Amino acid sequence: MIQQILNEKKQQVELRLRHLLRTEEPAHRTLYASMNYSLLAGGKRIRPALFLMALDLLGQPSGDYLDAACALECVHTYSLIHDDLPQMDDDDYRRGRLTNHKVYGAGMATMAGDGLLTFAFELLAGMEQVPAAVRCRLIRILAQAAGPDGMVGGQAQDIEAERRRLTLEELRTLDRCKTGCLLCAPLDMAAVLAEADAPAAEALHAYGIHLGQLFQITDDLLDVSGSLEEMGKEPGQDAVMHKATYVTLAGEAGARALAEQEAARAVQALAGMGPEAEDLRELAAWLLHRTK
Amino acid sequence: MIQQILNEKKQQVELRLRHLLRTEEPAHRTLYASMNYSLLAGGKRIRPALFLMALDLLGQPSGDYLDAACALECVHTYSLIHDDLPQMDDDDYRRGRLTNHKVYGAGMATMAGDGLLTFAFELLAGMEQVPAAVRCRLIRILAQAAGPDGMVGGQAQDIEAERRRLTLEELRTLDRCKTGCLLCAPLDMAAVLAEADAPAAEALHAYGIHLGQLFQITDDLLDVSGSLEEMGKEPGQDAVMHKATYVTLAGEAGARALAEQEAARAVQALAGMGPEAEDLRELAAWLLHRTK
Repeated sequence: MIQQILNEKKQQVELRLRHLLRTEEPAHRTLYASMNYSLLAGGKRIRPALFLMALDLLGQPSGDYLDAACALECVHTYSLIHDDLPQMDDDDYRRGRLTNHKVYGAGMATMAGDGLLTFAFELLAGMEQVPAAVRCRLIRILAQAAGPDGMVGGQAQDIEAERRRLTLEELRTLDRCKTGCLLCAPLDMAAVLAEADAPAAEALHAYGIHLGQLFQITDDLLDVSGSLEEMGKEPGQDAVMHKATYVTLAGEAGARALAEQEAARAVQALAGMGPEAEDLRELAAWLLHRTK
Repeated sequence: MIQQILNEKKQQVELRLRHLLRTEEPAHRTLYASMNYSLLAGGKRIRPALFLMALDLLGQPSGDYLDAACALECVHTYSLIHDDLPQMDDDDYRRGRLTNHKVYGAGMATMAGDGLLTFAFELLAGMEQVPAAVRCRLIRILAQAAGPDGMVGGQAQDIEAERRRLTLEELRTLDRCKTGCLLCAPLDMAAVLAEADAPAAEALHAYGIHLGQLFQITDDLLDVSGSLEEMGKEPGQDAVMHKATYVTLAGEAGARALAEQEAARAVQALAGMGPEAEDLRELAAWLLHRTK
């Protein structure tokens, strides 16, 4: 059931993404090709799906807000392109194909990331069907989640962590910024759009925080047990980079137990919500058992 | 006179910039230091100055909109950090000091740029004293000017230009994106904030386009005649990189003549405006004769 919902949301988002970045200007053709190369490379589209599922649960016509869903995916894709760069993780594969800089060079890949990030804000600011005050709130949520106190802050911690051994608590802080913020943003944005009451908004936010931790722990688990075919990126990279992960710090069984705990807490956060939150509960279970 | 006005605007902006990016989070200290290293390294602050001068000319209390001026400088600084990266121009000096990546490493410098760009939109979206609909328009103007059809597009053209010899017309297109868009944005943003009538908004925009060309031509001229002390970056880099510039394509005298033409056209664009536009006219003359 949840797989079907995720597929539907993914299709809906991808249809819109395909028409988003087009240019008539010959001089910009390579840049647009580079942005689309990564943006249209598939992926689970979890962030836009979360956003649309939260809108459904709050009784909103989620299909009316596809541009905001796409803005989330643009920011996520930009973060992957920059994260893969030689001066960052220096990865060769992502989403089952060569990384952006392996195809277009590191300079163009840097610009493709910059372009996608900037375009995300243009997209949100231009959603004329949404009251301007709400648009401003959406932009603030996304900018804070993606910015120096959010995702970029987490990436910076990651760079610094290469020099020393993190504690489990430090790793949690790092991941809360690096992965958690951009998984909470879709839920916070949906709550603002739907004018959800405080208990519902807080429940969704808490769910997002646990989902973020769950996502990162299962990512670490997949890095030791997954395959390039399933994940679309090379497994074993954490060990090559000597990165602190939940697996290196807590062991495989320990990490699995932590993941189960976070999945349970995510479901628990939605306790006050009715049966309409069932899809989100199922999503937590699905992420716990994901193989890619 | 114009020098004094520029100094005043610069001081006003720098006072605000100094208080903008602070963190209490120890884990984010290096990232914030890296962002502030480049943001507070001086520079002419031309973009925020243009924005504030245009507001003055339109009878607005420019001091009320310092956050928008700072957002412009954040975007400009991010573009310099990324432009200097090893995979881009690979420059060692900027604004009289080592480039960001020379001090913090290429990974952290990439994140510092990403952080500044993202923060600029957070800043604009949070200007509560400005009606939300106006904030959305400011965000769109800045995102379009900085994004794939603007500055990032120009940078991408620049990367591609390394492979072949540009014509003067192609160089103009490149610079219109790379430099021109972010020099027009302050004028367009001021016009929107002041609710300027169409002729005034168009005059300011046209002025910005010619100022952008003027700025780039004098930049190329300074690269052959300037010094590290004056410019804060190493001269002669264009020749080292075999870049097409106005000087390589039109010769030094030809480039000088083109610069004079653009300065005259910038002044001409303001013909319909009264004596209150005198500062902007002087600015064009000042840029024509700048030595840094």
